[in-house]
Amino acid sequence: MFMHNKKLQYTVRVAEPNPVLGSLLLEQFGGPDGELAAAMRYFTQGLGEDDAGRKDMLLDIATEELSHLEVIGSIVAMLTKGAKAELAEAALSEAELYMSLTKGGDSHTQSILFGGGPALTNSSGAPWTAAYVDSRGDPTCDLRSNIAAESRAKIIYERLINITDDPGIKDALGFLMTREIAHQKSFEKALYAISDNFPPGKLPGIARYASTYVNTSQGEGDMTGPWNEGEQWDRIDDVAGNLPVDGGSGGASIDLPDPAAKAAADLMTRTRSRPDHDVTTGADLGAGPGAGRMSGEDLGGAEDIAGAARQAQAL
Amino acid sequence: MFMHNKKLQYTVRVAEPNPVLGSLLLEQFGGPDGELAAAMRYFTQGLGEDDAGRKDMLLDIATEELSHLEVIGSIVAMLTKGAKAELAEAALSEAELYMSLTKGGDSHTQSILFGGGPALTNSSGAPWTAAYVDSRGDPTCDLRSNIAAESRAKIIYERLINITDDPGIKDALGFLMTREIAHQKSFEKALYAISDNFPPGKLPGIARYASTYVNTSQGEGDMTGPWNEGEQWDRIDDVAGNLPVDGGSGGASIDLPDPAAKAAADLMTRTRSRPDHDVTTGADLGAGPGAGRMSGEDLGGAEDIAGAARQAQAL
Amino acid sequence: MFMHNKKLQYTVRVAEPNPVLGSLLLEQFGGPDGELAAAMRYFTQGLGEDDAGRKDMLLDIATEELSHLEVIGSIVAMLTKGAKAELAEAALSEAELYMSLTKGGDSHTQSILFGGGPALTNSSGAPWTAAYVDSRGDPTCDLRSNIAAESRAKIIYERLINITDDPGIKDALGFLMTREIAHQKSFEKALYAISDNFPPGKLPGIARYASTYVNTSQGEGDMTGPWNEGEQWDRIDDVAGNLPVDGGSGGASIDLPDPAAKAAADLMTRTRSRPDHDVTTGADLGAGPGAGRMSGEDLGGAEDIAGAARQAQAL
Amino acid sequence: MFMHNKKLQYTVRVAEPNPVLGSLLLEQFGGPDGELAAAMRYFTQGLGEDDAGRKDMLLDIATEELSHLEVIGSIVAMLTKGAKAELAEAALSEAELYMSLTKGGDSHTQSILFGGGPALTNSSGAPWTAAYVDSRGDPTCDLRSNIAAESRAKIIYERLINITDDPGIKDALGFLMTREIAHQKSFEKALYAISDNFPPGKLPGIARYASTYVNTSQGEGDMTGPWNEGEQWDRIDDVAGNLPVDGGSGGASIDLPDPAAKAAADLMTRTRSRPDHDVTTGADLGAGPGAGRMSGEDLGGAEDIAGAARQAQAL
Amino acid sequence: MFMHNKKLQYTVRVAEPNPVLGSLLLEQFGGPDGELAAAMRYFTQGLGEDDAGRKDMLLDIATEELSHLEVIGSIVAMLTKGAKAELAEAALSEAELYMSLTKGGDSHTQSILFGGGPALTNSSGAPWTAAYVDSRGDPTCDLRSNIAAESRAKIIYERLINITDDPGIKDALGFLMTREIAHQKSFEKALYAISDNFPPGKLPGIARYASTYVNTSQGEGDMTGPWNEGEQWDRIDDVAGNLPVDGGSGGASIDLPDPAAKAAADLMTRTRSRPDHDVTTGADLGAGPGAGRMSGEDLGGAEDIAGAARQAQAL
Amino acid sequence: MFMHNKKLQYTVRVAEPNPVLGSLLLEQFGGPDGELAAAMRYFTQGLGEDDAGRKDMLLDIATEELSHLEVIGSIVAMLTKGAKAELAEAALSEAELYMSLTKGGDSHTQSILFGGGPALTNSSGAPWTAAYVDSRGDPTCDLRSNIAAESRAKIIYERLINITDDPGIKDALGFLMTREIAHQKSFEKALYAISDNFPPGKLPGIARYASTYVNTSQGEGDMTGPWNEGEQWDRIDDVAGNLPVDGGSGGASIDLPDPAAKAAADLMTRTRSRPDHDVTTGADLGAGPGAGRMSGEDLGGAEDIAGAARQAQAL
Repeated sequence: MFMHNKKLQYTVRVAEPNPVLGSLLLEQFGGPDGELAAAMRYFTQGLGEDDAGRKDMLLDIATEELSHLEVIGSIVAMLTKGAKAELAEAALSEAELYMSLTKGGDSHTQSILFGGGPALTNSSGAPWTAAYVDSRGDPTCDLRSNIAAESRAKIIYERLINITDDPGIKDALGFLMTREIAHQKSFEKALYAISDNFPPGKLPGIARYASTYVNTSQGEGDMTGPWNEGEQWDRIDDVAGNLPVDGGSGGASIDLPDPAAKAAADLMTRTRSRPDHDVTTGADLGAGPGAGRMSGEDLGGAEDIAGAARQAQAL
Repeated sequence: MFMHNKKLQYTVRVAEPNPVLGSLLLEQFGGPDGELAAAMRYFTQGLGEDDAGRKDMLLDIATEELSHLEVIGSIVAMLTKGAKAELAEAALSEAELYMSLTKGGDSHTQSILFGGGPALTNSSGAPWTAAYVDSRGDPTCDLRSNIAAESRAKIIYERLINITDDPGIKDALGFLMTREIAHQKSFEKALYAISDNFPPGKLPGIARYASTYVNTSQGEGDMTGPWNEGEQWDRIDDVAGNLPVDGGSGGASIDLPDPAAKAAADLMTRTRSRPDHDVTTGADLGAGPGAGRMSGEDLGGAEDIAGAARQAQAL
Repeated sequence: MFMHNKKLQYTVRVAEPNPVLGSLLLEQFGGPDGELAAAMRYFTQGLGEDDAGRKDMLLDIATEELSHLEVIGSIVAMLTKGAKAELAEAALSEAELYMSLTKGGDSHTQSILFGGGPALTNSSGAPWTAAYVDSRGDPTCDLRSNIAAESRAKIIYERLINITDDPGIKDALGFLMTREIAHQKSFEKALYAISDNFPPGKLPGIARYASTYVNTSQGEGDMTGPWNEGEQWDRIDDVAGNLPVDGGSGGASIDLPDPAAKAAADLMTRTRSRPDHDVTTGADLGAGPGAGRMSGEDLGGAEDIAGAARQAQAL
Repeated sequence: MFMHNKKLQYTVRVAEPNPVLGSLLLEQFGGPDGELAAAMRYFTQGLGEDDAGRKDMLLDIATEELSHLEVIGSIVAMLTKGAKAELAEAALSEAELYMSLTKGGDSHTQSILFGGGPALTNSSGAPWTAAYVDSRGDPTCDLRSNIAAESRAKIIYERLINITDDPGIKDALGFLMTREIAHQKSFEKALYAISDNFPPGKLPGIARYASTYVNTSQGEGDMTGPWNEGEQWDRIDDVAGNLPVDGGSGGASIDLPDPAAKAAADLMTRTRSRPDHDVTTGADLGAGPGAGRMSGEDLGGAEDIAGAARQAQAL
Repeated sequence: MFMHNKKLQYTVRVAEPNPVLGSLLLEQFGGPDGELAAAMRYFTQGLGEDDAGRKDMLLDIATEELSHLEVIGSIVAMLTKGAKAELAEAALSEAELYMSLTKGGDSHTQSILFGGGPALTNSSGAPWTAAYVDSRGDPTCDLRSNIAAESRAKIIYERLINITDDPGIKDALGFLMTREIAHQKSFEKALYAISDNFPPGKLPGIARYASTYVNTSQGEGDMTGPWNEGEQWDRIDDVAGNLPVDGGSGGASIDLPDPAAKAAADLMTRTRSRPDHDVTTGADLGAGPGAGRMSGEDLGGAEDIAGAARQAQAL
Repeated sequence: MFMHNKKLQYTVRVAEPNPVLGSLLLEQFGGPDGELAAAMRYFTQGLGEDDAGRKDMLLDIATEELSHLEVIGSIVAMLTKGAKAELAEAALSEAELYMSLTKGGDSHTQSILFGGGPALTNSSGAPWTAAYVDSRGDPTCDLRSNIAAESRAKIIYERLINITDDPGIKDALGFLMTREIAHQKSFEKALYAISDNFPPGKLPGIARYASTYVNTSQGEGDMTGPWNEGEQWDRIDDVAGNLPVDGGSGGASIDLPDPAAKAAADLMTRTRSRPDHDVTTGADLGAGPGAGRMSGEDLGGAEDIAGAARQAQAL
């Protein structure tokens, strides 16, 4: 069971109102790498986990992330507290309120729809979705996902710190950013506490495909490195010449039983395209009296479209 | 620029129609760990990448994932080809078609809405969303996200292999699963080819918070392990006693300028709750003549609600 | 700050595995009226609330809802624990695993994608979205939204109780259902502790429109009741004859400055429809040799389409 | 059946173009508390309703809300009419058009994607979703949801009125706002015309849990009021000491049959974490030559991260 | 199988950084009419297509659209390359970075969340969703959908060209726009190569309803044209007088078997509204001491709400 | 303004309850090609339209589509009326109710969450989203989108007719299907009443790219037809040899000003990959004692993965 202490994990001191900054910080409140995503990621994993050590760790960190959600939400609430009251009380003229809402970011929606409260959206107003949570119920996957998620959260905090000059906010964000580093370290330790964690799952791969690198992107800029060259790798450069890799036909096939086979044949017949049927089309009909406008001359390269645009304006 | 060869990377041989299985396989076509998500993840990273080696690798693998999208989509198309034709041609009676659609999974939607073609949804019909793509523009984050994504994709393929007994499908899924292992290896190599990759980004953490483990979940089941104990860790067990960690007040504060401060005071006054105002409420009004039904007796534990349900049925 | 005790608020005793039931119960885990929605609704309100009494209540209840999320998630985890392990270990044959996954509900996705863990989706697999959270930052609105939300949650629990015969689950659901009743009561009391709570907000309505009932749906079935008749209501039955209600033109107008006015005129001219231009269309072109199939005879009523369908099958 | 009269319910007079204001007003066109949400909420309830009085009322109000959708959409269409034409006709220079699009709000998307027409999105461009509609098929729930929804819509209109100084728009918004008040009154009357409306549904709660208030959030700021104290309430302050409330173990349990039990044991064994396995991790590998940068000194409180940021810039 | 050549299909030359323009161009990267939508639309159709000619065409165009995705994404990457680096390296002061992020559009999210890389969102930050893809598995539908989609994409490019004065970008957008025209032409040709393509599908319509035009919107502004008048049309102007069109009752009915009929009767009885039950409601309770504020006087028309607003401010 | 007549446009006679069929029919209630999508598509276009003829037509058809929404919703309400009552009244045993909910489709969610009422979701429970509405504010685009949408709606109705043997439902669906044909005809007429409708918009294309067909998909199965061959087309078969089509470098470039150029260089340096840095990775660490399991032997083709799966089961 959860319990709550009214003190924040980290003190929030905001120097002055800034609803636009508040709306940017929502990225870590209701964004994909934000604290709700983190908390729900670890909490859902914890509920389904049987290993006592991992379960404990997941619940510890999930609970801390909820507390971080509270810290970041409290920062946003402070930044928007003034704007919230001014709009609710109609304390400024309409023109002033309008201007305060359209200063940038997506703070307009936060003011109009959410009344200045912290909203579970990202900085563009996209509502948080559980599609952000990639718990899969396999610990070697889930821990890797957690490592990656902490890594992303760290970088978002770093970016927010880089755009903020309010020292109190910078300080709290620095705390939150650092905790992501600590959590990443815990998840790394937990991953390697599973003695055999690669490949994830139980089923081994097929050896001859597991060490092949397929060089599908070619041309100037082709590079080599430890990710595609060296002892661990067989590299295929002649991609087309090795199609398909299994030596089969490279096609897709199925044996359809009757009446499916008959229905499939009927469907093909009914909807077949006739390659010789080059008739007038809707587009031909619609090209109208101005139909010549596109076929008269070849306008050439970079200057073309600017010219065409001018021409269009002059019609 | 992309080009296409009509041969598949791996031959698809499907033994017999099974639209329900087809709808389950959509998990890797339009699901969060599916091939479109993989392709778009690496492609968007590749476009924004300046490092020649990583750019090349990301485009190689993105292109291969598009080819895997084609393989898994072709399997689905084969599995549903018969049902598609039978529905389009009305080749069976209404009752037979109805039954074929309601055999399980979400194949009903795939038949009715998508006409039996492979749809970019997961196995529950949730449309693919770019919210699945977590490219963040920092290579040490993005590579970790890629490692995690390959790891998840591997496990989904393993689960699909475990429920399939069609040898041709099992074989193609095995190929696809193995390629995820190979890609994970490439991304791991590329991560460590960045000499200083932890913590991600440029900004270091604050030392005293980076090695703290906060034991927020307590009670029977508390565990220790390398993730929270040992040389690298300071552990806080008395969480409440250490609130807030910064030694401040643990509150949230801001200095509001006028007129924001006045508006805030007005708003508080106007909407204040009066703790002494214990009046009749809407719920009190609505409890109606049956209002006593909940307060008469204490129904007790596990048998209560069953009893209450019976009582409700008997009213 | 949040803290966690490893004991659940209510003991979970599940009699036997049932992943389909587990997927139905997700409605209260990741569905719109589920516990995460409740917790986030109250938590976001609490963060933005300045009234000490309401803030305390909102955090109390938000924290309890998180604890309920844990209870319902634990029930789901128990119901799916067996299926999760069997799929991960491939402990049954492929055919048996396939059958266990396609028994109904959306448990197939929960198994394949989420590996049997509790997922933040509703019972159809739609991911939880913050669009479910309707906190608006005005206490008289938010409390009404909370009252409604508790009311909805109560009814969903009642439905789940009605379909469950496992006594331990029934019991825990009964507890959770009852807590929604208690929370509704608290929110009702808090709403009426605001002495002037209707209409919500600060701005009064315009008197002559606030008591008008517009009878827009007419015909057999027109009814009267306290919602549209009596002292409080003026009722408009001749809707069309009173258009518009403000006595104006009923049109929409704007004075466009130049050059906008000129551009608007140009746009109208360029894209005007010519009512006299009855020409062959794409559909006419496409009606093809079978064009007569629809115009030959009037097929009549209820038997028509069945007949047409037969005819189509016989082509 | 629906019919339409070309006159609006309320005349729309807009003084001058303002696409940014238009994009803010979308909140009530395609936002969660907007008119489409209202119309669809009542319409879906009306279709499923058997009580003649409520069915009539729901269809009356749904039809009026569609008419309000037309009013608010017409305001938006007027506000953007000039910008729409200027962009379509390329009537201004590229630089002027670019500037007109980037004045604020999300009007850029409304111009580029929707061509200046009213779009079913909220003011941040999030597309309207039926997830906003919380019809649940129980009248005592649905009426409460309607009351809450009208209450929210009223407050959004109030906010929009507060930021608008165009008298014609202010006037029309005032009409729309007032109608929400009237509708709320109707729904309240209809709720209490059900004689026994609390608790919603049929199943009574369990008496001893229905009057308990759980004080889960503690510390400075703990408050009492009619929502948690008084005759109706039993209050639990020693939360941890009363865990679980049912007197059981507070754990979650299930009896797994074979082979599920064996599979579960196998899974636990295969993926167990070894608490003694404190080995080098990926993060350790990646800390690189700069690994020492975080552990050298304790940077301290508020000044830390600013200092760290400076340091990072100076590297 | 897909392959990739590192040269773009069209050279990208960007004159100077402009992250806001970059965020607007996302409309064609991750927006509903953008290149990913196009590519996935044709690719999913191609996978399910059996007709050799159409399959080839669909794969040709899908592959080219992926190449266009690369071109538009490369433009965005160039436009944001500087901002990306400045934020990552903290190369400017916090205030400068904050200002560069809040210049307009939704470039703030692209910088903070996506780190300056091209993101699969539209210009408002709404993530791409497969709900944009309307492949339905019937060629005469799908080709019409493709024609419409190319038409929409053309117009979006035209709008973007109209707001851009960078000649290199204008040029590349002109190329992309023109290719949509070419693709529309191909799809038109392919549609008419199916000899009988209207109505789509196999089932003919019911003749007497296929040529009826129902004039449901009446009043000043009623118009005629080839779409509702002429030989092909029967027009119903007396809509209400012809309800229902089938000559039945116009009601909805079902014969419920027992016990469903009994349950339905019980449900109606339990939740019936009592039209005579005009009692005090929650809103009545909540109107409070200020209850008279709305009923005292009739404030009148356009000046009302402005007056009311002033009054509210003066309270 | 909208008005409503309580008679349906078409009488609904349902023979017997079938909640699963009801959930399938939701495809046309809240699905992408359903009646709400149609109504909102035309309504939003109508609001923004200045041409009197098109505006009238769009409002006529939008209003009729709302009436169709009522018809299809009424069918669903009838099909689920019994199940709704049985669940609300707990009229059957828990086991019977559970079974009635899990018969197929997504009717479980419709029962539990929506209480048996018609819900604005598709047949998989995905909530309706305004992302389905592709109104773009250009009439030649929008009419083409409408033509395509009617075409899709027709085919979905055809599929639903094919799976239904209830004559009353079949009949009503036949009516609705036929009306889509009539609407398509109207939109076609309206498109060609614009004399110059191709290409859409005002800006002509660049002649030399408008008639080029790029054969990007090659290999066995390459086809020709009127869509890529004939007088109107120049065809490029040597795709790679013609890269880029503009004769430029095929690269993407920008001139970065200082300090952006310096920041970009710093970023590249800081995150460069070292191709020679082939070190132990996290995956290498994690391959563990079972690391050899994948490299021992080459398991071969189709039998491999089945063998591997067996081996995994036998571990």
